[in-house]
Parts: sequence; structure tokens; C-alpha cells
Amino acid sequence: MPKTDATHDARRRSWVDSANGHPEFPIQNLPLGVFVPPEGGAPRGGVAIGDFILDLGAAHAAGLFAGAAARAAEAASGPALNDLFALGAGPRAALRARLSELLALGSPERPRVEPCLHRAADCTLQLPARIGDYTDFYAGIHHATNTGRQLRPDNPLLPNYKHVPVGYHGRASSVVPSGAPVRRPNGQRKPAGEAAPSFGPSRNLDYELELGIWMGPGNPLGEPIPIAEAGARIAGFCLLNDWSARDIQAWEYQPLGPFLAKSFCTTVSPWVVTPEALAPFRIAQPPRPEGDPAPLPYLLDAADQREGALAVELEVLLLTPGLREKGLPPQRVALSHTRHLYWTPAQLVAHHACGGCNLRPGDLFGSGTVSGPEEGSFGSLLEATRGGRKPLRLPSGEIRRFLEDGDEVIFRAHARREGFASIGFGECRGTIRPAP
Amino acid sequence: MPKTDATHDARRRSWVDSANGHPEFPIQNLPLGVFVPPEGGAPRGGVAIGDFILDLGAAHAAGLFAGAAARAAEAASGPALNDLFALGAGPRAALRARLSELLALGSPERPRVEPCLHRAADCTLQLPARIGDYTDFYAGIHHATNTGRQLRPDNPLLPNYKHVPVGYHGRASSVVPSGAPVRRPNGQRKPAGEAAPSFGPSRNLDYELELGIWMGPGNPLGEPIPIAEAGARIAGFCLLNDWSARDIQAWEYQPLGPFLAKSFCTTVSPWVVTPEALAPFRIAQPPRPEGDPAPLPYLLDAADQREGALAVELEVLLLTPGLREKGLPPQRVALSHTRHLYWTPAQLVAHHACGGCNLRPGDLFGSGTVSGPEEGSFGSLLEATRGGRKPLRLPSGEIRRFLEDGDEVIFRAHARREGFASIGFGECRGTIRPAP
Repeated sequence: MPKTDATHDARRRSWVDSANGHPEFPIQNLPLGVFVPPEGGAPRGGVAIGDFILDLGAAHAAGLFAGAAARAAEAASGPALNDLFALGAGPRAALRARLSELLALGSPERPRVEPCLHRAADCTLQLPARIGDYTDFYAGIHHATNTGRQLRPDNPLLPNYKHVPVGYHGRASSVVPSGAPVRRPNGQRKPAGEAAPSFGPSRNLDYELELGIWMGPGNPLGEPIPIAEAGARIAGFCLLNDWSARDIQAWEYQPLGPFLAKSFCTTVSPWVVTPEALAPFRIAQPPRPEGDPAPLPYLLDAADQREGALAVELEVLLLTPGLREKGLPPQRVALSHTRHLYWTPAQLVAHHACGGCNLRPGDLFGSGTVSGPEEGSFGSLLEATRGGRKPLRLPSGEIRRFLEDGDEVIFRAHARREGFASIGFGECRGTIRPAP
Repeated sequence: MPKTDATHDARRRSWVDSANGHPEFPIQNLPLGVFVPPEGGAPRGGVAIGDFILDLGAAHAAGLFAGAAARAAEAASGPALNDLFALGAGPRAALRARLSELLALGSPERPRVEPCLHRAADCTLQLPARIGDYTDFYAGIHHATNTGRQLRPDNPLLPNYKHVPVGYHGRASSVVPSGAPVRRPNGQRKPAGEAAPSFGPSRNLDYELELGIWMGPGNPLGEPIPIAEAGARIAGFCLLNDWSARDIQAWEYQPLGPFLAKSFCTTVSPWVVTPEALAPFRIAQPPRPEGDPAPLPYLLDAADQREGALAVELEVLLLTPGLREKGLPPQRVALSHTRHLYWTPAQLVAHHACGGCNLRPGDLFGSGTVSGPEEGSFGSLLEATRGGRKPLRLPSGEIRRFLEDGDEVIFRAHARREGFASIGFGECRGTIRPAP
């Protein structure tokens, strides 16, 4: 696991004024992404600093990097970060260390760095990488319990849950960056009480609050990744909204799992928060409740148990047409935390590769919906409204069982720890458009 | 649907002698693939003709194509056929028509074509396209019934089966071309009677006989593909072995479907048999049994019902270490037929896109296991041996419940129709290597 160093020093300030005290992107964060600058041109790798984006290719061309940092900046200067992700932790950490120096208050390089900055509000953010495969896990144990309870009140968790990091293959083509519209899908659904299914717009459209994981160096087909090495294969983290059409899902998912109920769209936040930036926010994997089985040896590593989990607070906000009309702000409908994940990110990587399935740089994982155990911490409307039976009441007078056209869902996330500067993930937003 | 023309004329012969009467690649077939020539170099697009491969880029450089055929040949000259697939039926058909002329007995261009031929046995075949997403369907109704019966003897088919073309997202990274070794996966399995799962090599390794479908022109995110246009979006067909670890599958698959039980490896035959080549082998979708529901309108098209199914015979052969030792040939363990698919290829495409999921050129579909209703027509060992309870007995004296290390599984397929030259798909082979 990465250790803290000077780049995490809460006292370090930047000559980019807006970075100091920035809720998302202070100099201690330095997340990676791909953007198109205000004047247009090819998409390129950049780093968020306060209200600005630093163009990595331009900074590299200006001769601001050497050695491993230069290799990383060069790999990040194209339209996708896959090559940077493939380099692994060493060059990425070297890039971070140099960027932190360059952007720190008092840096003698400021005159050479400043021309490489663009105002973020004028840039367009894209997906950070070409996604080879996208896999969605189910590691939020309270979500699994809450949704399982709706089907099996006495026995909500299936027998495999505490042994297997359950997951399924998702659709890579329909992953979009924050801000892209989300079209309500048509599909087959068979409402309770109707004799036959019909085809039309989903009536039970939902969000799912997930942590996204970007893969770094992968493994050749047939060769597993040992759990002790699995954490170091991760290139970074983001927010992920696994939009779900519950009525389509209920009808289609037996026996092979969710398909069109999920694959119409998945939204990710565009910034990749690196394992280096998150070093201060590592926590022990919460102890398993009394009676739970120990993970099998291929999923068990002492260091991973000690510091492989993350302390990241996750929020869901909802902005409806009625709230917008009344000038009311987005309403927070959930506050959750990554400590509610039953498996660490490294366990998800090691499990995915344990049978030899090859992971590639730029592959994306979803953690599964991160819900807490109590009211107000549920990562989906299915849980928050008990499948629609207990609607949300908004200050606009609107009620919500599931999402309506025009609703905007906003996820935010922050890592916090006493003595360290908080860092944010940026937003993961999407607005529901009517079905075609 | 494509109509037959001079390229299908059974009397047409080639000056490539081995093509005449060739069981797989007569001049009426002309399947597309990607190969590395004997002298090495970059992978490139080619066409199979008898025992040879025609280098499309070289033939294009020799000025043998014009117009749409030239555009197609140029798109096929790189290391993957995605660009050709994106062009759709018109240029692909023009390329076929010109290739058929060039390779026909008596072609005046023979001296310019001949230098572009390589002996296929000396070439290495690769995957024909970069696979964006791989989706596996479940359209073989006898397979669904046979496997469902092992779990639910009285009610083998789930209620959605005859309404929904059931499918799930598969893993694109681990799709390999015929001949690549298949490593037995390790994984979690919980044998009946054991209290807890353990981790180790799969004991119930199986094949699944499937038709593969390569996507041509796709659809933008959010915009469905109408059923009447869906057939024309298909670039071609292949054989696909959806290797399956039954014990891992049984333990992991609830509630989100197959994951590591399938994603350790998927083998495809390397040649893409085009819709044009298959024009004579189109048949009506077999009538649904009395009492089955009609497909919903978004899946129903008169032309597709009339001629959207395929008449392709599929075979499974098994070559074990014992057979090899005794000098015995591969043993045929199944003979099946694509008429056993409950949905047409166009219905799979239209369903996949009905909620707006975007398909891309080079996406791959598996049909689902194609089994017939009777003994000897089962596309998996799970069905043929009734889950291992009724082992296969081989002339070598060996028995097989599931696959053993060293076993080689060979799929073959042929389209046949009175009055037309039969065409083949080439082989889809894989040999089981021991678990790591």
C-alpha cells in the first residue's frame, strides 16, 4: 500500500489560488482525466488542480518532467490514459511527486507551468480510458441484504454471498462520462398481476451508488493475480452510477443475470483519484460479524486486511423539475461510506483473475451499490422507497418512487481524515431523458 | 436478406485447384479473416480459398479492386476487420462479387492474383476483429430445457424464456482464436454434501457448442435497431465454444449470473462466414409449438420469420489422450443444427438494442448452446452425460463425465442445400491444459 509523503502534507499550498481549500481538488489530490481544452482539439490527459486543469502533454513538451515522471506524462498525453494505467504505481507516483512540486506555492517553475493550465469550466471532460471490459460487483452487503429481503424476507443473503465476491460482466460500450444524458430505456416488463409481458418505457428507473475502480497493469490469460499483488494493479478510483431499470430486470434476469436492465447506460465521474492520493484514507477492512466465514486463502492478505479498505464518504443528491422550478437546491437522499463494502478492492481484483481471466489496463469495475444499514444511507431508490412502497417526499411537494423524466442524479464523494486535507472525486451526474 | 447470385453458382470453379470440392472453403464461401503470413509481419485481412489465403491488402495494392470493393478491401487490409464490418453489406457484397470473379477458373487476372496467395497451413490465424463487447445468448431452447430439467424437473423452462431472448454480458478479453490452449480454471466450488466451499481446479469442465455472430454497423447509444433492419447489421458468423466450469458456475451464479465459470476462456473459429455466403442457406424460422406466445412486435418481422433462420449443421468432436495414443480419430459426440435456435440472429440484435444499448462493429454474440431434442444432438457434456451421471464411453476405453486435461474439443459446421455447393465454417478447436 502507498505510504503518505510530502504530497499529502496538509500544509502544502498551491500558487493556483482556487486549489487552496478546494473541496474536491486541492494540491493533495491531483486526479487524472482526459479533457478537450476550450479552443477544441484532440482529447488529452490532464490533472485537476482547483478550478483548473493542467495539460500533461503540454507540460511534458515544456520539459517539466524527467525520468519516470516524464514517461508517465508522455503516456498520459494521448486521448486515453490506458498507457499510463499500464505503467503501474512507480511512474504514476513519480508524476504525482513532480506535479506537487510544480504546483506548490513558491515553485520556481510557475512561469513554465502556468501556460499549461486551462479553466476547467471551459473544458469538456471525457472518459479517462478506453474500457476493454466493465465488471460490476455486488460487494455492498447492506444493499445485497436490503434487495434480497424484498425477495426473500427470511433469508435475504444467498449462501454464496460471504464466500464469493459476487459479480457479473457489464456492458463497456454504454459507459459514459458525467453529464451525458441518460435515456429511459424501453424494454420488456411484466407487472405483477398481468398475464403477459409488454414492451415500453421502464417505469421503475433507478440509480445505484457505486465506487468505480480503474485497472492498471493486468495479467496474461491463464495467470491469476495473487492477493498480495492485487492492490498494486489498481490505477485509481471514481464514482459510478449503475443505472437500473428494475421492472425490466425483474422479468429478464433469470437465470443468467441482469442484461438490458443495466446496459442502456452507466455513468462514471471523469476524474481518476489515484491510490497515491488515497494513501492517507486507507483503513482496515471492518471485522466480519461473528459467525461469518473467513475469506478463502486466495482472498486473504494481512496487509490488505490491515489497510486495504477505503474511508470515502459517498452522497446521492436528487434535483427534480419541481425543485428546479422552485429554485430549490439538489436534495441529499443518501449518505453512505465505503466501509460498507464486504470485500476490499484488492479482493475484487484477485477474485476476478483467480481462474485466469485476463484483466487489462483501462478495465473498469463497479463495487456494487454502497448502502449503509440505516435509513438515509441507501444507495438506490429500490432500497430507499422499499421498492416504491414508501415514496420519498421532496420539499417541492413532489414524491418519488422511482426516477421521473427530467430528474438529475448527482453523486459526490470525499475522503476525509483528521490531520489531512480532504479530497473529492468530483461529480457523477446524469439527467433522465424520455424514452424514444 | 441477401439473394443468391452468380457467386453461389455451384458450377463455378476456381483456378485454385484445392478449392474445388473443398469441404470448407470452395469459391462459393470466401470467408474473411485475419492472418499472419508464413514470412511473418503484421496481421492482415484475408479470404480463405481452398487451402490458401488471399491477402486482401496485397490484392488491393495490386489494383485488383475498384469502387465499393476497393473500399472494402482497403478496410480489410489492417490487423482487424472492424472497419470492414462497419461498412455494412454493400461494400462487403461488392468485395465478394469481385473476389469470385478474380478466383474463378478462366479469370484473366490470375497472374496478378496468384502472388497474393499464401498456403493456409503456413499462416497463423488470429481473431478477426477487436471485440468491443461480447454477449452470450441462451437461444437454444433444447439446451435451456435440458439444463433447466436438471434443476427443475417439472418446470424446466423459466416463465420468461419464450418472451425474452435471454442473454448476459460475457468477457471480451478472454476470447481467443481456434487452437489457443485452454487452461482449466481454479475457482470456488462447493460440492454437494460439503459444508463450505473450497478453492481449486474445476472438476466439471465443459464445452458449449454455439453459433457466433459478428456485428457490423451498430447504433448510437439510446437509439434502438428496428427488427426489420437488424439482420443487415450482422457482418458474419463463426463457431464459438463457451467453455464452462459447471461446478464454479453452480456456486457463483446466484443472483447475478455466470461470471468466472465462463470468463476464463471463449474460443472462436477464425473465419467469418458472411451473410452473402449464407444466402442460399436461409430458412424460415421453425413455427413455434402450439401454445407458445407470439414474439412481441419489436421482435417480429415477416421477412425475418420467412428467411431469417439458418440451415447450418454443427458437430462436436472429442480427441482424448487415450484416442491419440491408440491412433484413433476424434470421435463425434454431437450433431446439431441451427434450426434449434428459438430466436433468429436478427431477433438477438433487435432485442440487444431495444433499450438503446449501443452495439459496435466487431462486437461478438454467442447464440447460446445449440442442442437438439434427442440423444446425440446435445451441445454440452452437462446434457450429454446428464450432469455426469451417464458418462460417455469412448472406443479407447476411456469414459468422460466432463473434460479431462489433454482433451481436445473440435467444432465443425457446414451449410448444405440441394443444388448448392456446401460451405464450411472451418474448425473451432481447443485443448485443455492443467490448472496452474
